[in-house]
Amino acid sequence: MNLYADLCELLRVDQVTQNDAERMRHGQDESYHRPQLPDVVVFPESTDDVVAVLRYANDRRTPVVPFAVGSSLEGHVIPVRGGISLDMMRMNKIREIRRDDFLVCVEPGVCKEQLNAALKRYGLFFSVDPGADASMGGMAATNASGTTTVRYGVMRDQVRALEVALPDGRVIHTGSLAAKSSSGYHLNGLFVGSEGTLGVITELWLRVHGLPESVSAARATFSSIAACASTAVAVMGAGIPVARMELIDEPTMRGVNRYRNTSFPEAPTLFFEFHGNASGLQQDVSAVREIAEGEGCASFSVETTEEGRKRLWDSRHVSYPAFRAQFPGKRSLATDVCVPLTEFAAAVSYTRSLLDEAGMIGGIVGHAGDGNFHAQIIVDPDDPQDVGKAHDLTDRLVHYALTSGGTCTGEHGVGLGKRAYQSAEHGSSLELMRSIKQLIDPNNIMNPGKLVGD
Amino acid sequence: MNLYADLCELLRVDQVTQNDAERMRHGQDESYHRPQLPDVVVFPESTDDVVAVLRYANDRRTPVVPFAVGSSLEGHVIPVRGGISLDMMRMNKIREIRRDDFLVCVEPGVCKEQLNAALKRYGLFFSVDPGADASMGGMAATNASGTTTVRYGVMRDQVRALEVALPDGRVIHTGSLAAKSSSGYHLNGLFVGSEGTLGVITELWLRVHGLPESVSAARATFSSIAACASTAVAVMGAGIPVARMELIDEPTMRGVNRYRNTSFPEAPTLFFEFHGNASGLQQDVSAVREIAEGEGCASFSVETTEEGRKRLWDSRHVSYPAFRAQFPGKRSLATDVCVPLTEFAAAVSYTRSLLDEAGMIGGIVGHAGDGNFHAQIIVDPDDPQDVGKAHDLTDRLVHYALTSGGTCTGEHGVGLGKRAYQSAEHGSSLELMRSIKQLIDPNNIMNPGKLVGD
Repeated sequence: MNLYADLCELLRVDQVTQNDAERMRHGQDESYHRPQLPDVVVFPESTDDVVAVLRYANDRRTPVVPFAVGSSLEGHVIPVRGGISLDMMRMNKIREIRRDDFLVCVEPGVCKEQLNAALKRYGLFFSVDPGADASMGGMAATNASGTTTVRYGVMRDQVRALEVALPDGRVIHTGSLAAKSSSGYHLNGLFVGSEGTLGVITELWLRVHGLPESVSAARATFSSIAACASTAVAVMGAGIPVARMELIDEPTMRGVNRYRNTSFPEAPTLFFEFHGNASGLQQDVSAVREIAEGEGCASFSVETTEEGRKRLWDSRHVSYPAFRAQFPGKRSLATDVCVPLTEFAAAVSYTRSLLDEAGMIGGIVGHAGDGNFHAQIIVDPDDPQDVGKAHDLTDRLVHYALTSGGTCTGEHGVGLGKRAYQSAEHGSSLELMRSIKQLIDPNNIMNPGKLVGD
Repeated sequence: MNLYADLCELLRVDQVTQNDAERMRHGQDESYHRPQLPDVVVFPESTDDVVAVLRYANDRRTPVVPFAVGSSLEGHVIPVRGGISLDMMRMNKIREIRRDDFLVCVEPGVCKEQLNAALKRYGLFFSVDPGADASMGGMAATNASGTTTVRYGVMRDQVRALEVALPDGRVIHTGSLAAKSSSGYHLNGLFVGSEGTLGVITELWLRVHGLPESVSAARATFSSIAACASTAVAVMGAGIPVARMELIDEPTMRGVNRYRNTSFPEAPTLFFEFHGNASGLQQDVSAVREIAEGEGCASFSVETTEEGRKRLWDSRHVSYPAFRAQFPGKRSLATDVCVPLTEFAAAVSYTRSLLDEAGMIGGIVGHAGDGNFHAQIIVDPDDPQDVGKAHDLTDRLVHYALTSGGTCTGEHGVGLGKRAYQSAEHGSSLELMRSIKQLIDPNNIMNPGKLVGD
């Protein structure tokens, strides 16, 4: 085939590779989904490069799958039809920081830690924290969220403006730098969460936030997950503006202690973070402590030092690899349902009962203020029965979440793993989504087979 | 014509009218745009009624323009091609209040004050406050916002799920009741702000908020608009979570005093509201006072009583009719640009200089924390020269806002008045918007001639 040669001519030779290791790296993500290799990996360095590749691919009906750090959890970046893996990581410049407008302009390959390091000296931070050190383009593509969403919103809430290269090579600009707009259809919203199926994001203007005057963290342990969940619902009901409120169950705490050699109590735990002015924050912490004690918490400890807070949040952030590390050679499947707040406690209990019934190993962590949680189920990817049981559990949990008015995916996205639930969740809206895909990408070159299927 | 007779057969006779007074009422809004009458006004009472009308209209290529209270400011509800005005006000039931989920389910004709009266006993409130007692369907259609947006977001941020009747009679459900989702394309976002050009919203699930523990208001007067604007930017920069921060200029304050027989200082003023816990709020008020004093404020007064706060906000809410009431027989045109925060002071000064140069009467009010402001320009709708001067001023101001990275409309929407700016603002994105309109409404029956034009 001449795909490689053609692309070498279109760009520079060092921007195109067929190297097996690179193809392997671009054929997988962090999920349990089986790798499938792209034919070629291309490294664009500008919007023009992206446009050149898209025009070429669109003419020849060659699939194009945008790729960045590969931290997706539902197979989004796996090139299931081969073709081109478009690695955006050379487009990793922070183009502009507008401090007093709380705005930054970045290329899609800029990652969270890189951005926060640059913002710190301006007294700013980027709020979306999905755990992985993900890229801004990838986070926009999946509408990522995470621990701070309860206070600062999801990725879509941070996106002010986008530059997007469409499959036919047109480049459009969506949104503006204004804090709000009622002008035209909300294309920002359409491209955020479209998982690379409608075009390639080549630039983002993102909202950032001022570092809070004071920060405090706390940890409360309970005798049951249900008590954690009720506490979380009560905190939201009291209108306390927690910046983070994270649930970690007992098996996951055990994994964290082994992984990090820490000695946190191995009990169902809520981790809190508070942002605000000094006096307001103190009142918030007291109010949360009172609620937690009312729900029978076994311990409540406050971390005021930066070091203590770092240790506390490190244990939340490593919970995913820490839990899996207990089971060498296995992969894990993470469920991601999100339900209305009042359904959260019941949904978490139901999940634990499903794990127990199926005899499967799983840890539960959750963004308790959003009604979003993950059961990390340990599976042997080479054992079809094991994978089948995990899928069966997911099916039942998603069905439960949809019946409760929730969604199959709160933050991981659809990718490969949630396609089967799109019809049940969206009903006749799915038809409209498919016609929008067909409108923008008539040749189905953009990440084919994902999200809305074919 | 048999439109009236057909619709009487399709629904009930008392749901259809050709009465001149009703046609007149449905042929105009609050704007300066010239009324144009619908052929028939129809009052659906259910989604089925809406579907029946849409199917009929789509078969016969009859325009359909959704209508509620008629408070739009850019001619959105004016049936410029005649046809059917679809009055949604009989669909005005609050279907469900889910207190602990902070969610309500409403029909599109439910209005802001009706909703807040019902929510109060649950300790909740609906945050979007555009001034007028607008309907939820109308506010969603224009992505309305207002005084509290700086803290609680725009209408799009409150919409969790929608039922929408499409032009061909299909009924779709978008979104879910979960706090966040990464499932499928963001159709909620597409229909919010679509101004009735893509379908009819027949049900909304909206996010509501807990009434804050403490509320306080303050008023600061300055010697110049520029000092007001710098104060607003500094407050945002300090990360103080003001719930409202409204700018009113001297001519508007004068109008308010005459209209309400009050005696507020007739000077450029910032109105503040603070929501939070008691101690945090006190610290916020002190911090704002310090900033305002640093910017040379002439007076700073705090209102802690509910009555004092009501009087203060009443004067902001009546500012629009109060200013116009000084000029009997005239209409007004309200500009609505929104710019990045750091451009706010310069944009407001530029607007005043444009008014002075043109020798036009105008008052300026603004949502200072969002960079959004309105020049209310007094025009004689029967004097083409006057209207022409107002349009010319708007053109120059919009051009200025777009050059500053802003938008032609922060909250009023496009309707008729901002169509001319869509190409300049959106560039090649407008083509995509038009193709989405064409995809969903191929016969162009839904509010034809608005937003994306034809």
